[in-house]
Amino acid sequence: MEQLHGVIPPVSTPFTDDLLVDTTSLERLVKHLLDGGVHGLFALGSTSETVFLTPKQRNQVLETVVSAAQGKVPVVAGVMAMTTSECVAHGLEAKRLGANGLVLTMPFYTRTSQFETIEHFRLVARATGLPIIAYDIPVCVGNKLAPETLKTLFQEGLIVALKDSSGDDTSLRRLALELRGSAARLLTGSELMVDTALYFGAHGVVPGLGNVDPHGYTRLYQHAVKADWQAAKLEQERLIRLFEIVNAASIPGMSPGANAMGGFKTALMLRGIIASNAVGQPQTRYDEAGVRVVAKLLAEAGLS
Amino acid sequence: MEQLHGVIPPVSTPFTDDLLVDTTSLERLVKHLLDGGVHGLFALGSTSETVFLTPKQRNQVLETVVSAAQGKVPVVAGVMAMTTSECVAHGLEAKRLGANGLVLTMPFYTRTSQFETIEHFRLVARATGLPIIAYDIPVCVGNKLAPETLKTLFQEGLIVALKDSSGDDTSLRRLALELRGSAARLLTGSELMVDTALYFGAHGVVPGLGNVDPHGYTRLYQHAVKADWQAAKLEQERLIRLFEIVNAASIPGMSPGANAMGGFKTALMLRGIIASNAVGQPQTRYDEAGVRVVAKLLAEAGLS
Amino acid sequence: MEQLHGVIPPVSTPFTDDLLVDTTSLERLVKHLLDGGVHGLFALGSTSETVFLTPKQRNQVLETVVSAAQGKVPVVAGVMAMTTSECVAHGLEAKRLGANGLVLTMPFYTRTSQFETIEHFRLVARATGLPIIAYDIPVCVGNKLAPETLKTLFQEGLIVALKDSSGDDTSLRRLALELRGSAARLLTGSELMVDTALYFGAHGVVPGLGNVDPHGYTRLYQHAVKADWQAAKLEQERLIRLFEIVNAASIPGMSPGANAMGGFKTALMLRGIIASNAVGQPQTRYDEAGVRVVAKLLAEAGLS
Amino acid sequence: MEQLHGVIPPVSTPFTDDLLVDTTSLERLVKHLLDGGVHGLFALGSTSETVFLTPKQRNQVLETVVSAAQGKVPVVAGVMAMTTSECVAHGLEAKRLGANGLVLTMPFYTRTSQFETIEHFRLVARATGLPIIAYDIPVCVGNKLAPETLKTLFQEGLIVALKDSSGDDTSLRRLALELRGSAARLLTGSELMVDTALYFGAHGVVPGLGNVDPHGYTRLYQHAVKADWQAAKLEQERLIRLFEIVNAASIPGMSPGANAMGGFKTALMLRGIIASNAVGQPQTRYDEAGVRVVAKLLAEAGLS
Repeated sequence: MEQLHGVIPPVSTPFTDDLLVDTTSLERLVKHLLDGGVHGLFALGSTSETVFLTPKQRNQVLETVVSAAQGKVPVVAGVMAMTTSECVAHGLEAKRLGANGLVLTMPFYTRTSQFETIEHFRLVARATGLPIIAYDIPVCVGNKLAPETLKTLFQEGLIVALKDSSGDDTSLRRLALELRGSAARLLTGSELMVDTALYFGAHGVVPGLGNVDPHGYTRLYQHAVKADWQAAKLEQERLIRLFEIVNAASIPGMSPGANAMGGFKTALMLRGIIASNAVGQPQTRYDEAGVRVVAKLLAEAGLS
Repeated sequence: MEQLHGVIPPVSTPFTDDLLVDTTSLERLVKHLLDGGVHGLFALGSTSETVFLTPKQRNQVLETVVSAAQGKVPVVAGVMAMTTSECVAHGLEAKRLGANGLVLTMPFYTRTSQFETIEHFRLVARATGLPIIAYDIPVCVGNKLAPETLKTLFQEGLIVALKDSSGDDTSLRRLALELRGSAARLLTGSELMVDTALYFGAHGVVPGLGNVDPHGYTRLYQHAVKADWQAAKLEQERLIRLFEIVNAASIPGMSPGANAMGGFKTALMLRGIIASNAVGQPQTRYDEAGVRVVAKLLAEAGLS
Repeated sequence: MEQLHGVIPPVSTPFTDDLLVDTTSLERLVKHLLDGGVHGLFALGSTSETVFLTPKQRNQVLETVVSAAQGKVPVVAGVMAMTTSECVAHGLEAKRLGANGLVLTMPFYTRTSQFETIEHFRLVARATGLPIIAYDIPVCVGNKLAPETLKTLFQEGLIVALKDSSGDDTSLRRLALELRGSAARLLTGSELMVDTALYFGAHGVVPGLGNVDPHGYTRLYQHAVKADWQAAKLEQERLIRLFEIVNAASIPGMSPGANAMGGFKTALMLRGIIASNAVGQPQTRYDEAGVRVVAKLLAEAGLS
Repeated sequence: MEQLHGVIPPVSTPFTDDLLVDTTSLERLVKHLLDGGVHGLFALGSTSETVFLTPKQRNQVLETVVSAAQGKVPVVAGVMAMTTSECVAHGLEAKRLGANGLVLTMPFYTRTSQFETIEHFRLVARATGLPIIAYDIPVCVGNKLAPETLKTLFQEGLIVALKDSSGDDTSLRRLALELRGSAARLLTGSELMVDTALYFGAHGVVPGLGNVDPHGYTRLYQHAVKADWQAAKLEQERLIRLFEIVNAASIPGMSPGANAMGGFKTALMLRGIIASNAVGQPQTRYDEAGVRVVAKLLAEAGLS
């Protein structure tokens, strides 16, 4: 865990058309990711539609991922819950099921502060005894982990890594420069800016799109490791074009979340990896027109 | 439930110093509220620190409130959960424990839309069969229930009432004017603007501060019912001054949430109604200086 | 100026179809407002489309308003400029042309602070020697005048009044309660919440819609002065319905500003007070469909 | 202008301690920038404190910059005004004084739309006949130029370039990918992310910090042109550390704007290029402690 790096996709959670967890599809997805050469697996993340799962389903998902991973790569588990006690409970459950680390956001719904957030991380770290990855995702949580907070968390040994999904690459870069030489691991959640993040000092990426094309992301990572930026850029640009699958549906009133989850799942379905593109309620499912656009984009990206 | 009106406080959840639910204090609090003449009780709301409770504690709280209410007033239960399926699960549990209605927000954490929100309400309403109160609280949820969405929810019979904690009284007033004559019930969550909300057409209020001074809020409501606006204003102004208890602590880094919950609980403790002013983790607890300020404000409000 | 109160409309600036200032229409508008019993005139405000005027046109407008007012009511002039030196220049020009006071916002475009804002007001007040009305309009300026800042400005005698267009009536009410008994004058810019603002302690209103129906707003004010809240509410509700004229056009891509200015001007044109509903560039002008909707709303409000 | 590229600093406007424009210092600054190898000059930008200047001072500044540039590089002029007619007026004046192009933001203060913004650019482009650079700066303007708007503006030939100060590099990169092969020129305003922006397809940079160290930015640009990313990164990192001069003062209540402008000016003063670090009113001037921190940072960056 202290060496966390490379491509660590947030594993999508396939559903049956009846909205049960489709563990067969999930096993196939994990195999697909391992075949793609990923360096870790992030179960129960935002892209995993974790917040749509029941407690029982969360366990089902994590068990399946841990088992399918066969110990080949570390498995980290998201603990997306509103407050400390629930995060501790999720974290202990994840530990019991074999997670190697936890991914933890700021408290949400409640109006929290940076100061209380440090206490939040301290309590979860102590209670679970697992390595913690701080997850900065203001678009979901409504708050940003301040650079000073992150530095405190690293310095006090409360976190081993950051997953930055804030979209604020300038802030991430400044942090990378300040923390260079320390043990802090920085992962970007911006799947369209992976080459530049690795260039300026990030250690890895957590790409939702990596579900669809893990091979692309690991090639991109290898190019970056060799500082072959020309090749990295070409790969990243292909992936940027592929990312249009998250805007493929054109159903009025559909949410950004449903578009993203549905785009990934539709592509995975078309690639034969999962059985259905169903998404958690009340999200709108991709229609036929959307499926056709995704198919076209897959073909253009060389993935049909 | 179709006649929901008056003062319906969001019942605070007292904790022991060990952060267990203090049911004895909770029973005393419910008695205090009933003595104060409240017209309903809202258990498991934001002011109840619901998101800090475990599933077992949620049940413990609701059972205690329902039992202590002795059927004298309706008890509605918050279902503060991120998505539809969890809200259904919480709602069915609340129904089993005797709640007369549910209080439901938009989905959060996930990036949702107005369209999918209507589906969310539809699914929860159908699955639970209980009357639903829509809860508009952008500061927690990160999204506002649009007036068009609310009108659709009322027209389709998916909700019986709105609890508006958006702070946007102009919007609430326009809605009140449009819905006048319908069965829609409008409750304001703005405890400092109760007289004006009742004046322009709201039917009731859900005041966090009502925990501390239910008698004041029911007096205010009665003045409004009699259109004695001079008396209503004087009462409201006294309560505005009392509300300063939520800014009584001066601990650097303390969150707005901890300030509000802590202010209410400190006042209840000083009034002898609950045993401790402990708040859910990782919130900061009021210090001695804060307690002294609250005591002074209680005295000034004639509540010592 | 120290007695500022009542209805002080932000005088709309009529244009010819060629986008010149139509002074004949402007004179007629001022006469219409005085006939309506207004207690003051606010020239060069946001509703006056001041920012669309050239320096020469600003002077033309202010001269016309001052002259048409014939000293019957105070005329205050907006100094909507980005920074201190420009505000001083506009203010001195307004003083020369006979304005009785200035209406001043926070600096904008530049990223300012509350502290520097106090200095801004100090410099403009000293340089112009005119009474200043602080204008809180976050939707245009991108910043809110903090209550502490306003209290400092009043205490240091740098402002005589506040025009609050923040929409945050709770904050205005708390300020009103704190400043009660002082010389501070509070004016609301929320034309749909005038009765409630007067009820809780505001001294007057600056209603854009007051251009269209000054008689309605002065009736409303008189009802409030007599504490006849039932009559005040009926009048306010009629005006809320009339306010729909700002949503009467349905041209895709039209801005909120163009809708509001265009709605007021179309109504004034239909009432025979101004010659054209032209708005400043690049704003979209109301189309025929929009004009028809405004006509219908005027009829419903008894103004045809 | 159609070949706009490289380092185009927004030229700071030196003031005397009496807040007059210090043209001698300004000439020295332009010479310093030309010595530093810059590829263009952007006068009257945000970093130029343009909004703090009177009309006469704007002309004085532009004349000085045009004259000192001696035709060696293109000079573009900002037209930071609230609305179309003022932008046209500023633009014609800038044209008369020899500007080679204009830098134009969305309308501000007024609540505008993307649709009306296109009309705004159309009117200014037609009236002035000068090449236009769209300036996307949401932090000042309160609105973002949408990618679709930018594509329309490029396609209709209304703009030749974009200066992107939105901080949203993902959006800029997607635009760069879509517009690749067209004549559109993309300049980043993010002075800390220049290497990555040039890497993914931007053509140049408009760095406020380039006033202080133009040699550094032109070296950085040359490394990028040669695709020597290792050298580019080292240079960029040195400049990131130097950028701390914008946080060097520690005066309570000082605005972000005053910090940035003051940091640049203090460094220029210490380097002997301008005479004073005075900033426009009501901004707070750097104190002695701040000056000492800037001196230390300059030394660390090898610039003392």
